[in-house]
Order: sequence, then structure tokens, then C-alpha cells
Amino acid sequence: MPRIVIIGAGFGGLNAAKGLADADAEITVIDRRNFHLFQPLLYQVATGALSPGEIASPVRNVLHRQKNTRVLMADVTDIDPANKRLLFQDGGACQYDMLVIAAGSTHHYFGHPEWAQCAPGLKSIEDATEIRRRILTAFEHAEREDDPVARKAWMTFLIVGGGPTGVELAGALAEVANDTLRHDFRRINPRESQILLIEGSDRLLPPFDPKLSAGAAQALAAKGVMVHTHSTVTELDAEGAEVKFPDRTERIATKTIIWAAGVHAATLSSVIATRFAVTPDKAGRIPVEADLTVAGHPDVFVIGDMAVFLQDGKPVPGVAPVAIQQGSYVAGAIRQKLRNQMPKPFRYWDTGSLATIGRGSAVAQIGKLRFSGPVAWLAWLFIHLMYLVGFENRVIVLLEWAFNYFTHNRSARLITGVKEG
Amino acid sequence: MPRIVIIGAGFGGLNAAKGLADADAEITVIDRRNFHLFQPLLYQVATGALSPGEIASPVRNVLHRQKNTRVLMADVTDIDPANKRLLFQDGGACQYDMLVIAAGSTHHYFGHPEWAQCAPGLKSIEDATEIRRRILTAFEHAEREDDPVARKAWMTFLIVGGGPTGVELAGALAEVANDTLRHDFRRINPRESQILLIEGSDRLLPPFDPKLSAGAAQALAAKGVMVHTHSTVTELDAEGAEVKFPDRTERIATKTIIWAAGVHAATLSSVIATRFAVTPDKAGRIPVEADLTVAGHPDVFVIGDMAVFLQDGKPVPGVAPVAIQQGSYVAGAIRQKLRNQMPKPFRYWDTGSLATIGRGSAVAQIGKLRFSGPVAWLAWLFIHLMYLVGFENRVIVLLEWAFNYFTHNRSARLITGVKEG
Repeated sequence: MPRIVIIGAGFGGLNAAKGLADADAEITVIDRRNFHLFQPLLYQVATGALSPGEIASPVRNVLHRQKNTRVLMADVTDIDPANKRLLFQDGGACQYDMLVIAAGSTHHYFGHPEWAQCAPGLKSIEDATEIRRRILTAFEHAEREDDPVARKAWMTFLIVGGGPTGVELAGALAEVANDTLRHDFRRINPRESQILLIEGSDRLLPPFDPKLSAGAAQALAAKGVMVHTHSTVTELDAEGAEVKFPDRTERIATKTIIWAAGVHAATLSSVIATRFAVTPDKAGRIPVEADLTVAGHPDVFVIGDMAVFLQDGKPVPGVAPVAIQQGSYVAGAIRQKLRNQMPKPFRYWDTGSLATIGRGSAVAQIGKLRFSGPVAWLAWLFIHLMYLVGFENRVIVLLEWAFNYFTHNRSARLITGVKEG
Repeated sequence: MPRIVIIGAGFGGLNAAKGLADADAEITVIDRRNFHLFQPLLYQVATGALSPGEIASPVRNVLHRQKNTRVLMADVTDIDPANKRLLFQDGGACQYDMLVIAAGSTHHYFGHPEWAQCAPGLKSIEDATEIRRRILTAFEHAEREDDPVARKAWMTFLIVGGGPTGVELAGALAEVANDTLRHDFRRINPRESQILLIEGSDRLLPPFDPKLSAGAAQALAAKGVMVHTHSTVTELDAEGAEVKFPDRTERIATKTIIWAAGVHAATLSSVIATRFAVTPDKAGRIPVEADLTVAGHPDVFVIGDMAVFLQDGKPVPGVAPVAIQQGSYVAGAIRQKLRNQMPKPFRYWDTGSLATIGRGSAVAQIGKLRFSGPVAWLAWLFIHLMYLVGFENRVIVLLEWAFNYFTHNRSARLITGVKEG
């Protein structure tokens, strides 16, 4: 039986595996983690609205009824195309006949890897609980700080990057400061927090319609978020950041910086580039053919955030719907190739874009429709619940949102990850 | 206004604070963590049934409407009774007129602190997610292991201590192996796991009625748990443990050992002993007077797991109901002392004991009643939900249990706390 190996159990890999459920093949899904993570809701873990377990599903559980599929928890560090073999970090190995690479992306600090320490990004559960720890600890320090200058630095939050992650984080953080914590402190007033959102381009949510970008900026401003476009961070350390605004360069004293600015294909992409002799783009993404294979390797697919696929001359964006559609496409393409048929080229069907600014507030563009406010927010809610893996998670998340909506409470605002004495 | 300081926001401290809600005093609650933790359900986090956020409540949120109360996140490292002053690890300090110490307990390795590394105990959220990581990783390693001897070591789990924590952990772990994971692996059969429960005394759950102990042992045996009483661990390392059984001493090869054997008062107890010139018992607990104060210090109370209080010549047990009742008592005693009245001595009203063995199975003794099976399990369920802090947590936990009951799934079985590459 042909051995089909899928690297990564994100949106792309998981959908490829599901699409091969009853294929006459031996499917292996390899991931470093034992769970599929619903990354679009990570910012809600980072701001204490949801618990990690509520947006993650064990991969084995998702696929456990699929008899032709096995799951391996391993970290693929090398590929040997001549012998059709993967090598794992722990010394293990695995043979393949066809390979699907869907290892996702990581943060990108534009040549400043040292910034990662002071400005964590939001890609993993650990990132989210670390950001949650930093945000909540900042308010705790502020409450105990006598010096007004130091207190202000604790109560200043800088979010770098005005894409969906930055916008959603800024909106949620504003609600934490304005509503969730409003009765919690005795010396500080959390509503006096400063939340800065820094975006390099001319508007927030660059891939959206400019009207929606303006709407998002307005909604954030109404929550007290200071939105700065045409602005970039030029220096960054544990005590603050130097920001180049259009009219001046200023040092912002802040203890909490969150990085939502750049993504780069996961480290495996450099291995792919070398082993398959392809040139990645500057974000490390691997160019793929019309059928999502690597040039010259019709049995190796690269999908999701790791791939750069040109459609009508433009790369398709690095979003969940692309990965999902590519995963399903690849499952079909593999079935056809196994029957010696030629798959039709992949084509991304744009399902639209959504970003939420907070309670009852979102922007959406679906087809030719552009809308914002409560209707967009309900659409956002519905679509996110629909794509969340696992019926149980859907029910629990919906319930958590209902509580959050009516009480403003965020019950998962725990400071964890510190060792007790 | 008198300054009343409460160290610890566990069952004792939180109930003392709540009992002083409308007192004419300045209340300060100090805890190292920003949340109250419902420790009786920690084993369900360790076995993937619940998420940390579901059994923890932010202390500030619990007390935010209580205007006379402030919350400090700090680690008290010293007490200066002459100046009525507490010192914090970070250099901060705090004055008190009356002091309530409720800092709880930690693990006790009976003179082998080095065992902590190989056999984590279950007291904090971090302990629970670490044990969860070890249990789930063991099955992952077993699935990939070719050597049958090594595979058996990965599939052997040793729980040291047959009190409520050990019994509940063993029962939950058996259900993980027998039910939750039953379709998850392709090479191993999780039902072939060996779960050993080691207890030094002659029976499980020593404080319970012997009939209930026997019932618990039987229920565990029916789930495949190997219960060994009269047995102790004499050596312990990363590869296994040496166990002294009644008839032999044997080395058990296991990669996963969980410590549920001993507790010791939190480290602050040695500071109390020195500063207030009292002699702690061998578990580090501080002896207290009839009104729960330290001898010679009528304004210093010690309650909960940190205190040893003799009632009818016997120490009251280190369980949640004792801490809760002592917390409420102390709030009343403080109010009386502030009015120069003498409080009546504390008396513990035994509300009964409950331990669950798993799905539909528990043992209970309430007053003169002794019962087990589904009725005891429903009583356990009801009482745990009732004492869980926060309406939201109650609803979510009940829903998680309902899912778990009908599907056997444990959706929070995530391997976290590892750094991604």
C-alpha cells in the first residue's frame, strides 16, 4: 500500500488527512505537538477569555476512527528525497511514497531575533499563556508601584503589527483594561492603561477593503486604543521601544510588548529548499506548482503557510481557509495520482475575511459584501465556532463567550508558568 | 481602622476574607498566585479532563466587590512580630494589626527531596500540567518504542500514596488507559498499561471506614489498578523505583512516578516557628490554641493545612472543609476581638469524606452514613460543584463532566510546557 506521510496537523495537514479517510493507503500524520491548535482564537487565551484546552484538540482523538491513519509525535528535522525518507530529531525515521508538508509558520523579527525575548509573538499555547502572564503581571506590578513613571510603564502596552492578530489582541486587551479588571484594583485604575497599536503600512488590516480598515481603526479608538499607522519599531528592549512615527521618533516606556508583525515559514522550509533545490521567498515560503507540488517532485506537496502559491499573479494569503482548501485539494490530488490521473490545478475560492475588534464589533468582507458591527461580529462568532475542531470545544467556547458577553469576566486570567517556592 | 492581613487565598484565607466583607477594617489578602485554586479537582487537570482555568478563579475577581479588601500578589518570606510587619521576597513590606496565616502545604518526600524531580506531586497548576505531560508523553514514547522491555516501562505508572489524591489519580488514569485512549494508538494497546498504587499502611483511604477502603480497593482492581498496601518506595529514579512489598523487595521499571504520599506545611511555617517561638510538628504544622491563634500571640491566627488543631485529643485532618470552617471561624473571632469580646473555641463539624474512583464510582461517609457506587458519586459531584468558586466554572465543569461521561473523551489532554523549535 502506498505510504502517504503528512507533516503537520494544523488546518492544512489535518484536512489532507481527513480527505484521505477511506483511501487505499497507509497515512501517517506527524506533528511535534499532540494536538491540533485553533490558532485564530489564540488571542483569546492570551487575554484570559478561553483556556488552552478549549481551543485545542488531541490529534489522535480527531483521527482515531480513521483506521488507515496513524499519528506520530515527532519533530522532522531532515528529508532525504533520494531514499524517500524523513529523519526525526530523536533519531527516528519514516519512509514515504508521497509527502505532504504543512508545517506552518513562526514569528519573524525582520533581522532582530533578539527581540523575541522582550516581544513574544502569538503562535503556540505556550506563547499565549506567556503573553497572558505578562499582561496580568503588569497590572499586579502597577498596583504595587509607588513611582508614577514606573507605574505608567507597567500600564503601557505596545502591540506591533496591525493585521488581524494585532487588531484582535488590541481590542481584547482594551476590554480587559476597561471592563474585566475595572473593579479589581484599589490603587490603579486599569482604564488609564495605554494600549498602542503600531502598523507600518498606511492602514490596519491591509488585506481588507480600506473602508473596513477605517472602521476597525475607529472601533479601536473608541475603546481607547491608540492606533498609529505609517509607524515602525526601530529599537526594542525590556524597558520599552523606539517607535518611528510619521512625524517623529519617540521612545515609549513599556514593560509589555507583543509581536504581531511578521511571519516566516517554519524552520523546516530551509531543509526543503536545500533538499529539493528550490528557492524560498523572503518569508521562507516554498514556491509550488499548479497542483501544490514542488517543482520536479510530483510526489511532494507543500501547503498552508509554508507554501507560496500564485493565483492570478498574486500569492494567496496565509490564512486558515487557504490551508483548509489546500489540504482537501491535496487529498483529492493524491487519490488521483494513485490512479495515475492528473489532478486539475488548485484554485483558492476566497471565502472572505473577518476580524473582530471586541464585544459586538467586527469587520467582514464576504464576496462583494462589506459590513461591520454586530452582524459582522455574529458572522465571526458563527464561522469560528464552525471551524473549531470538536463538538465539545464548540459548546464550551460558546458558553464561555456567553458568560464573557454578559459579565465581562474572563475567568481564565491566570498567571501560570511560574515555579512555586 | 485596624489592618487585617491574610496570607494565602486558598480555602482558609478566602473564607476568612469573605467573612470580613462588611467589617470595619482594612483587609489585605496576599497570595503568590493571582488565583484561588480548587485543589480537589487538580487530578482531573493532570488526567486531561479539565483545563486549569476551569478550576481556578482570579482572587481579585472573587473579592472585587468587597470594598474594604485589597489583594496583593506577593511572596511573604519573613514576619517581624515586634513591628507587626510582613516582608516580601521582592523587597516589599506590609503592616498588620491582626494576621491570618493560611499558606497551605506542599509535598513531603520523607527526607528525599531529590525524588521530587522524578516523582512530581500534585499541588499546583504547574504540577498538574507537568504530570499530564508525563502521562501523555509516556504513551507517545510507547507507541514509537520497538523494544518490548522499554515499551513496558513507558506503559507502567506508579502512584505513591493511597490517600484520596492517589486513589482518585489511579482511578482516572485507569479510565484514560482503558477508555479515553482505546482507539488512539496503532501499535500499542493502552489497556495493557500497568497502574500500580502503593500505600504504606494496611489500607487505602486510611481516614475512611475500613469497609469503604475495601470498596475503593475493589473498584480500583476492577479497573485494572494493582493496589499494594503495606508497601513503601525505598528507592526512586528516572528509570523506576524499588518497592518494598510485604513479601519481597522488587524493582519496578517505570518512566512515570507520581507522588501522592506526604504533605508538609508550606515553607513559611519554619519562619512562623522561629519568629513566634513555637515548635511545629514533624509535618511542619504550627500548633494553635482553642481560638486558632499562636500561643502568646492573640492577634496571629494560623489555619488550614498549616495548622495542627487538636479536637478531642486528635488533630483535625488536612482537608478543605476544615480550612473553610476555620476561615469562617477566624473572620468571626476577629470581629469579636475588635469589639473586645472573647471568641468561643473553634470546633470542627465533620461534614464527611468523599473520594471518587471514577465514572459512576465513589465512596462516601457522611455522619453515620456509609455508602458507595453511583449515589456516592453523585454526592461527590454535587458537593464539588457546590464548593467550586465561581458560577461560570461550575457550569463549564458540569458540562465537561457530562461530555466525559457520555463520550469517555478528555479533551484537555494536551502535552504543553515544551518549547517549540
